[in-house]
Amino acid sequence: MTQKNSKIGGVRKRKNFGRPTISDVAAKVGVSSITVSRALRDPNKVSQKLRTRIAEVIEEINYIADPNAQALASARTRIIGVVIPSLSNHVFSEVLKGIYDRVEGTDYRILIGNSRYSEAEEERLVRLFIGQRAEALIITGIDQTQTTRKLLEKAHCPVVQIMEYTSEPVDMLVGFDHGLAAQQLVQHLIDQGFQRIASINAYMDPRVKRRMQAFQSQLKENGLYDADIQMSTDERPSVSEGKALAMKLLKQHPDVDAIFCGNDDLALGSLAAGLELGFDVPEQLGIAGFHDLEFMQAVHPSLTSIKTFRYEMGAQAMDMAIDSIEGELVVEKIRNIGYELVTRDSTLKIK
Amino acid sequence: MTQKNSKIGGVRKRKNFGRPTISDVAAKVGVSSITVSRALRDPNKVSQKLRTRIAEVIEEINYIADPNAQALASARTRIIGVVIPSLSNHVFSEVLKGIYDRVEGTDYRILIGNSRYSEAEEERLVRLFIGQRAEALIITGIDQTQTTRKLLEKAHCPVVQIMEYTSEPVDMLVGFDHGLAAQQLVQHLIDQGFQRIASINAYMDPRVKRRMQAFQSQLKENGLYDADIQMSTDERPSVSEGKALAMKLLKQHPDVDAIFCGNDDLALGSLAAGLELGFDVPEQLGIAGFHDLEFMQAVHPSLTSIKTFRYEMGAQAMDMAIDSIEGELVVEKIRNIGYELVTRDSTLKIK
Repeated sequence: MTQKNSKIGGVRKRKNFGRPTISDVAAKVGVSSITVSRALRDPNKVSQKLRTRIAEVIEEINYIADPNAQALASARTRIIGVVIPSLSNHVFSEVLKGIYDRVEGTDYRILIGNSRYSEAEEERLVRLFIGQRAEALIITGIDQTQTTRKLLEKAHCPVVQIMEYTSEPVDMLVGFDHGLAAQQLVQHLIDQGFQRIASINAYMDPRVKRRMQAFQSQLKENGLYDADIQMSTDERPSVSEGKALAMKLLKQHPDVDAIFCGNDDLALGSLAAGLELGFDVPEQLGIAGFHDLEFMQAVHPSLTSIKTFRYEMGAQAMDMAIDSIEGELVVEKIRNIGYELVTRDSTLKIK
Repeated sequence: MTQKNSKIGGVRKRKNFGRPTISDVAAKVGVSSITVSRALRDPNKVSQKLRTRIAEVIEEINYIADPNAQALASARTRIIGVVIPSLSNHVFSEVLKGIYDRVEGTDYRILIGNSRYSEAEEERLVRLFIGQRAEALIITGIDQTQTTRKLLEKAHCPVVQIMEYTSEPVDMLVGFDHGLAAQQLVQHLIDQGFQRIASINAYMDPRVKRRMQAFQSQLKENGLYDADIQMSTDERPSVSEGKALAMKLLKQHPDVDAIFCGNDDLALGSLAAGLELGFDVPEQLGIAGFHDLEFMQAVHPSLTSIKTFRYEMGAQAMDMAIDSIEGELVVEKIRNIGYELVTRDSTLKIK
C-alpha cells in the first residue's frame, strides 16, 4: 500500500504524516519497491549483500512497516482482543497477568478494550476488534446483549468467555459458579454461629448480583433473612465506600453480628469501621469478602474470603484461544475451574 | 481491499475467515461494490432509497467494515496509543480513568500497551503503535532507551510523557518531581521527632529509585542515615510483601521508629506488621506511603502519604494529545502539576 501511496506524489506525504515509506527505502538502496517488499517478506529470495544493505537503510531512515498494510497482505493480524469491564477493579489485574504470561514468547499481540461496565461500549469494542480482524476474542462474563452475542457467534474466530459459568457459552468458556461460592460462604457464617448476617455492596455488576441472589436465598432457607440489613450503593466499590457503608449499617443496626461484603475492598473498609467503633472481630462481628485479593491474608486480623482463580482463568483462556487459532484440539471447551472458601480470623469464632 | 480480495475467489474465503465482504453487500443490493463503498463514505452521494437498502443488507448479512482498510483509505486511524508499565499497580488505575474520561464523546479510540517494566517491550510497543499510525502517544516516565526516544522524536505525532518531570521531554509532558515529594516527607517525619527512619521497597521502578535517592540524601543531610535499615526486594510490591519486609525489619532492628514505604500497599502491610508485633502507631512507630491510594485515609489508624494527581495527569495528557492532533494551541507543553503531603494518624506524634 505504501508503494501505491508513493505514486500519488504530493498526497503521499500527508497520508503518511511525513513518515518514510517502502519506496523511500527502495530509492535509497537503488532497487524497486517490489524487491524491498520481497526481501522483507522472504529474505531468502534476495542476496545476503542486498539484505544487509536494505537493513542498513531501514535503520538509517527509520522506516517502520505499516502493520495495517501487512495485515491486509497476509490476512494474519496476530491480534487477540480482550474485553474487560474495568481497569481499576483489582480483580482483573490477575486475569490480565495470566493472559500476558501465556502470550509471552508467541508473536500474538494483546489489545485491551475497557467496556467500563457498559453494554453499549462492550458491543462497540466487539465490533472494533472484529473489524480489526482479531484472531481471537476473550470477553468477560456471559451477560452480553443479544446483538453482541450475535456478533460474537458470527465472528468466525475463537471466542472465550471468562469469569462466570454457563453450559451454553458463545464458543468456549473458563469460569466458575458465583452463586455456589456465595452459598458456601453463608453456610460457613451460619456454622460459626452468626445469626444477624448483613451484606454491603457497592456497584452491583452481574457477577455480584448473582452472588447476592444466592446469598439471600441461603439466608431465607435458614430463616435468617432480613432485608433491612442488606445495603448497597451505586458507587464503585472501594475501601472508603466499604467503611462508610459499614459505619452506617453498624450504627443503625448494632445487633448485626456478621457482614458479607460484595468484594474485598469493601471488607477491608468494614474491618476499619468495626475496629473504629470498638467491635471485637470476630467475637462480636464477623467479616468476609469475595475474590481473596492478596491483602486479605496480610491485614490484621486476617480476613475470610472466597478465593477465585483469576490468574488461571486468564492463562487458560489465552491457551484456549491460541490453540484454537492454530488448529490444535482444545480439550474441554467449557471449563468450570471452581473456587475455594478460605476461612481466616475475621469469621472464626469457633477455634 | 475487500473488493480486491473478493475477486480472488477461493482464496477470499480463507483471507476473510468467511466473513461477509463489501461485494457480498453489493451483490445482494444489486449495485457495484464501488457504489456501496461510496455510499458508506459519503451517504449524500446516493439516494435515500439506496442508503436504506444498503443499511438493511448490512444488518442482514452482518457486514462489518474493516478499519484497517478504512484507515489506509482515509489516513485517519483515530487511535491513541497508551504505554504503561503495569496493569496491576493500582497507581495506574486512576491515570487510565482520567484518560478514558477525556476520550469519551470523541471518536478517538484508546489502545493500551503494557510494557511490564521492560524497556525492550516498551520499544516494541512504541514501534507497534507508530506502525499502526496512532495519531498520538501517551507514554509513562522519562527513562526510555535511546532507540525508543529516537523513535518517539521521529514519530510525526504528538507524544505526551506522564508521571515524572523533566524540562526536556520528547514533546509534551505532564508530571511531578518525585524527589522533591520524598524530601518533603522525610522532613515531616524528622519534624515529628522520628530519629530512626527506615525504608522498605519492593521492585524499584525508575520513579521509586528517584524517590529513594532524595529520601536518603535528606536523611544524610540530617545525620540520620543508616544503610542497615533501608531494605528492599526485587519482588513486586504488595501488602503481603510489605508485611513480610516490615516484620523482618522490626525484628532485626526493634529501635526503628518510622518506616517510609515505597508505595501504599507496602505501607498497609507495614501497618499490619506493626500492629501484630504490638507497636503503638504512631507513638512507637510512624508509617508513611506514597501516592495516597484511596484506602490510606480509610484504614485504622489512617496512613500518611504523598498525594499524587494521577487522574489529572491522565486527563491532561489526553487533552494535550487531542488538542495537538486537532491543531489547537496547547498552552504549557511541559506541566509540573505537583503533589501534596497528606499527614494522618500514622505519623502525627505531635498533635
